[in-house]
Amino acid sequence: MTTVPRVLCPSLRKRIMSAKDAAALIPSGVNVGMSGFTGAGYPKAVPQALAEHIREQKTQGENYRISVWTGASTAPELDGALAEVDGIEMRLPYQSDPVCRQKINDGKMEYIDIHLSHVAQHAWSGFFGKLDIAIIEVSGITEDGRLIPSSSIGNNKTWIDQADKVILEVNYAQSAGLEGMHDVYYGTALPPRRKPIDITRPDERFGEKYLMCAPEKVIAVVETNAPDRNSRFSDPDENSCRIASHLLDFYTTEVENKRLPANLLPLQSGVGNIANAVMAGLNEGPFNNMTAYTEVLQDGMLAMLKSGKLAKASATAFSLSPEANKDLAENIDFYRERIILRTQEMSNHPEIIRRLGVIAMNGMIEADIYGNVNSTHVMGSRIMNGIGGSGDFARNGYLSVFMTPSTAKNGAISTIVPMVSHVDHTEHDVQVIVTEQGLADLRGLSPRQRALNIIEKCAHPDFRPQLRDYFERACAARRGMHTPHLLGEALSWHQRYEETGQM
Amino acid sequence: MTTVPRVLCPSLRKRIMSAKDAAALIPSGVNVGMSGFTGAGYPKAVPQALAEHIREQKTQGENYRISVWTGASTAPELDGALAEVDGIEMRLPYQSDPVCRQKINDGKMEYIDIHLSHVAQHAWSGFFGKLDIAIIEVSGITEDGRLIPSSSIGNNKTWIDQADKVILEVNYAQSAGLEGMHDVYYGTALPPRRKPIDITRPDERFGEKYLMCAPEKVIAVVETNAPDRNSRFSDPDENSCRIASHLLDFYTTEVENKRLPANLLPLQSGVGNIANAVMAGLNEGPFNNMTAYTEVLQDGMLAMLKSGKLAKASATAFSLSPEANKDLAENIDFYRERIILRTQEMSNHPEIIRRLGVIAMNGMIEADIYGNVNSTHVMGSRIMNGIGGSGDFARNGYLSVFMTPSTAKNGAISTIVPMVSHVDHTEHDVQVIVTEQGLADLRGLSPRQRALNIIEKCAHPDFRPQLRDYFERACAARRGMHTPHLLGEALSWHQRYEETGQM
Repeated sequence: MTTVPRVLCPSLRKRIMSAKDAAALIPSGVNVGMSGFTGAGYPKAVPQALAEHIREQKTQGENYRISVWTGASTAPELDGALAEVDGIEMRLPYQSDPVCRQKINDGKMEYIDIHLSHVAQHAWSGFFGKLDIAIIEVSGITEDGRLIPSSSIGNNKTWIDQADKVILEVNYAQSAGLEGMHDVYYGTALPPRRKPIDITRPDERFGEKYLMCAPEKVIAVVETNAPDRNSRFSDPDENSCRIASHLLDFYTTEVENKRLPANLLPLQSGVGNIANAVMAGLNEGPFNNMTAYTEVLQDGMLAMLKSGKLAKASATAFSLSPEANKDLAENIDFYRERIILRTQEMSNHPEIIRRLGVIAMNGMIEADIYGNVNSTHVMGSRIMNGIGGSGDFARNGYLSVFMTPSTAKNGAISTIVPMVSHVDHTEHDVQVIVTEQGLADLRGLSPRQRALNIIEKCAHPDFRPQLRDYFERACAARRGMHTPHLLGEALSWHQRYEETGQM
Repeated sequence: MTTVPRVLCPSLRKRIMSAKDAAALIPSGVNVGMSGFTGAGYPKAVPQALAEHIREQKTQGENYRISVWTGASTAPELDGALAEVDGIEMRLPYQSDPVCRQKINDGKMEYIDIHLSHVAQHAWSGFFGKLDIAIIEVSGITEDGRLIPSSSIGNNKTWIDQADKVILEVNYAQSAGLEGMHDVYYGTALPPRRKPIDITRPDERFGEKYLMCAPEKVIAVVETNAPDRNSRFSDPDENSCRIASHLLDFYTTEVENKRLPANLLPLQSGVGNIANAVMAGLNEGPFNNMTAYTEVLQDGMLAMLKSGKLAKASATAFSLSPEANKDLAENIDFYRERIILRTQEMSNHPEIIRRLGVIAMNGMIEADIYGNVNSTHVMGSRIMNGIGGSGDFARNGYLSVFMTPSTAKNGAISTIVPMVSHVDHTEHDVQVIVTEQGLADLRGLSPRQRALNIIEKCAHPDFRPQLRDYFERACAARRGMHTPHLLGEALSWHQRYEETGQM
């Protein structure tokens, strides 16, 4: 271990041990709360050591499994490693790992896909059972035992509070300059003792800079030195740029019509390449002095902070490319003045999102002609990732936008379908749908009016005739003209894709 | 007009006119915001006079139509009368009128079904266009021009604020003792200027007792003397009593396990006979000193206030039988100390519902084996009523419960189906499903675990073998084991019902 020691608290120094020894303290059958949100701030060593331990136990015939609760997605060292050895009985509230996904879709792992704002309160309320152990990455431990959070906060406060035992990973690869960037709210309570959360701007602080943990709970401290997942973003492709451009036009019109202030309202942006492209578009666009109240800071928002287009940003996690991560570390003082990382309870809190009037921008798998959105399931049955925080923001924000290219799989799949194969965001929660083809503004429209808009503005021209045909025949059937459907055909596009490889 | 005059403001007395004259002030093509929530506090005279006016205009070949925005449902004198003459171009955000429903399902009226907590802010933000005229029932006008609200508040504050012109109906049939029962919050703002809403208990007041309206906006005052819809409730039937009993057992267990306080948490209850039966059950049950933070007060909650089981209740409207309405009027001082009527923005506000930890109990049309709920559509296409406030409470409450008898149409329909034909509440928002057969507690369960629970605990025994068969074959198909479905069969139950009259 190089450089300045980061475990300064004497009593916790005594708990330093190897990841293998720490993993051996985790019995089979327990519920484990781990840090980690979008591949940032997850424990890197103990889960891998635990996976190895589970593999050994299994060769000896032991059915060794744990349940894993996190902030959101993690990385191969956590979800991948534990899923690989079939070590996860139950996973919540979000995942995006390929091995994990495969195990879930093979029926070898249970998975509960939960609104991210619900997780901490449901855990605290005991809805998931008892949390036994927390494994939390931090970037340091102060002399008096306070924990300096890492590159995400997620549910760490709740896991530490709720678990009987805590294992800390102190990651020397995280920038020491993260200290002071966090805001951990310790004023939460269970009803009926809850108070208003006193925040009226995205950049207000109302919590502590450190996580607190009773030292006697800490059963192990493991020192690590490994980077976050830090996946590279692809350069914005043509479709992403078109989506961004449609959105910018829309916001410009909204500002002109005084339905949005000149600096917009606090931005929330989902994770991924399209979201990143939209941020790149906003960085070139006409709006200044913007703010963000979001879950995750990707490269795009960092660039906007750097250019000054974005004044302040609040999130619960980073999700950066290696280059952006290097930039963050090198300019940590600049960013620390402009970024606040909060618990995900707060980054996704309905109260705050509603009050601030957040503009919610999220990706999706598909939308139907009436404006229902599927964010989670491929062809109705197979989980992709999960709903994450999209519901927290879409339901409670000022505007809810969903984005996707109009086709997938080289044009074999239309992302605009007669009926979505799974609903995560209902027609009541979807105001704007954008594809590279155009933008459908659904506000103030009835279902049939929405259908015409979505087909003509968002669907790919190759699929428009088929969609019009479905809609017209559904209307002609006169089974009910509020939301005309043909029950025998509503899901036939998905079925056809499965049978023929083409919708 | 009998008894003491209720239009005390001299300048507004000068605006008193007949309903017919007032209706003639409403041009075709305008957006009209009307009072009314669950058949309470809606204007009784002007809409009927307007319907007559429209009928006359239509006989002369004029295409005379308006758009109607309300709090929620109204009554035959409003929705029924205007729908009958095809006078409504667009209706929002909720309706439950048979004529209205028929017109929507016949494609003769556009309808937008909106979360009730969204309506005021979306109108204020200009998402529905400009509001031209408000027609608001009040129970009186003070000498200085303040308006004493009626038996519902709904969106009245917003309609009065947003409309260019206001027509007031002063209804002498409403109890004069309503004065002082209301709490109209005037602290709302558009983002980014919103502040925390300072309420921590259901019985706290933070607004005004009166509605304010600039007198120069008032173009007509119409005196009326007509009762609210005041539909009779049916006596709780065996199924409703069983549902209530399952819920009481569940709450008892939750209290024992310390997941709920001994007096539960503030109750929200949807409208209808089952909801009323649940309240009757709670009135006989073991819990004391309960509170309610809900949309609508039905007979059941009035009885609970009377017995003392319910200490305080907050809502935006009454929905009472004639007997309960008589009781309310006769004991108005007693009830005024225990009831607060608020704007629906506040009764349904995500911030408040989340903070108070409301227990949300709502009816539904059907649920599927994975816990998705359909609250609005019959067989996927035909609107029944609308989502109302169920989403506001289910998403943001502490617990979300959905209830229905397990069959409908004398056993021809199973309300537990393989896939719901329309989704209003996603799997992420549904924690408890109750039928007369039993209660499925879905917390902490993956989709397949939910399916087993819902089939075995909630489905009617006549449909269980079919549901098990679907689920088992869907699992066997191995298209994806997270949410196993057979796309070609998922909606076949609804299709079979339409073709054969039997699921």
